[in-house]
Amino acid sequence: MATLYLIPTTLGESSHARVIPPFNDDVVNQLRHFIVEDVRTARRFLKKMNPAFNIDSCVFFVLNQHTSPQDLEGFLKPLYEGTDMGVLSEAGCPAIADPGADVVAIAQQKNHKVVPLIGPSSILLSLMGSGFNGQSFSFVGYLPIQPAERSKALKKLESRAYAESQSQIFIETPYRNMKMLEEIIQTCQPATRLCVAVDISLDTEFIKTKSVKEWRSQLPDLNKRPCVFIIYKP
Amino acid sequence: MATLYLIPTTLGESSHARVIPPFNDDVVNQLRHFIVEDVRTARRFLKKMNPAFNIDSCVFFVLNQHTSPQDLEGFLKPLYEGTDMGVLSEAGCPAIADPGADVVAIAQQKNHKVVPLIGPSSILLSLMGSGFNGQSFSFVGYLPIQPAERSKALKKLESRAYAESQSQIFIETPYRNMKMLEEIIQTCQPATRLCVAVDISLDTEFIKTKSVKEWRSQLPDLNKRPCVFIIYKP
Repeated sequence: MATLYLIPTTLGESSHARVIPPFNDDVVNQLRHFIVEDVRTARRFLKKMNPAFNIDSCVFFVLNQHTSPQDLEGFLKPLYEGTDMGVLSEAGCPAIADPGADVVAIAQQKNHKVVPLIGPSSILLSLMGSGFNGQSFSFVGYLPIQPAERSKALKKLESRAYAESQSQIFIETPYRNMKMLEEIIQTCQPATRLCVAVDISLDTEFIKTKSVKEWRSQLPDLNKRPCVFIIYKP
Repeated sequence: MATLYLIPTTLGESSHARVIPPFNDDVVNQLRHFIVEDVRTARRFLKKMNPAFNIDSCVFFVLNQHTSPQDLEGFLKPLYEGTDMGVLSEAGCPAIADPGADVVAIAQQKNHKVVPLIGPSSILLSLMGSGFNGQSFSFVGYLPIQPAERSKALKKLESRAYAESQSQIFIETPYRNMKMLEEIIQTCQPATRLCVAVDISLDTEFIKTKSVKEWRSQLPDLNKRPCVFIIYKP
């Protein structure tokens, strides 16, 4: 039976050596069939990994919010026929806060071997750097956009951080980061701790934990930079 | 200001090239002060990374459940004095389901730069391979040991998986894995999906998702093997 490999990519313009183990290159060099979030990014990633990689011999299937379950089934045909395949997301780990899980679920149903490779996850790295509880944590993706719902969601996360001693991780679309930050420091209790993790694995990376009260006196510039937010009790 | 590096290690007997980006070696080669979960494992890791590494010139501080907050403060003295330091857990990523978060919290309070390096996390890799929701997930560590409490905890995780469409991740001490597996398939609904992820990043790795009902007919051998359990709705 063929294997489905889950292949992490760099988070923005970092070098491969910074974030990708050498083994991944050995695996990827053997593959010619890829399910990808974006063909252009995938081609650039493969070329950067191995400038001699024969991209023109590759087949790319595009997986995004427009992909139907029927399309997905079709994408996996090479796998059913005995050919190993790879899943590449646009940045970071496939199937984590990114498309890919549906493809993996089908491969699992059909009893194919699934092998996740190691690479950068901004969620995990942010949590490591936060100093918050890593024995219990929760990632909830994006919060609702509508103000009342969003405020309610934030309060729910905060109360769960306190009641369950659980680190609460979430993200925002980069151009809305500053608004998110302002809403957190308005909504959460002054003593609640907030970690802001920006540009993870890039030269401009910073991971900073302070109380909401401390953040109020000085807001960092998060505008249009990839950012992970984590809240936790004092 | 000196930097605190969080340095992932291999999960058991895998090669470094399998799971560690080359950049990590460059960082570690510059360090001589390490906060570690186990000195013997740390020495072996450093020696495997770089056989020429001068381990005898290194200072190791041991961080485990016996370490007091006062000890911790002392460990970070080299950092306060301007020397970069590294945190190594026994396996995988420091501060994730492992000690280290307290040290990071202190470094954050003292305004030191914290830099998490990339490496294997059995939690994240298991979730990637499960096919379950990676947009919302929760890790809760170990479940209670006392039978009634444990059964209650399992039911709570299952109901949260359904109510919040959230993947629920937990672990068990390896010699109790078979008991845990039996309890899951007795306690959870037949249609609930269970992913069992074993020996992550090793040659014997397998990640398998089935319904509880399907698992009932054939139990895999998990005894004394590191294993991550994930449950999710059908």
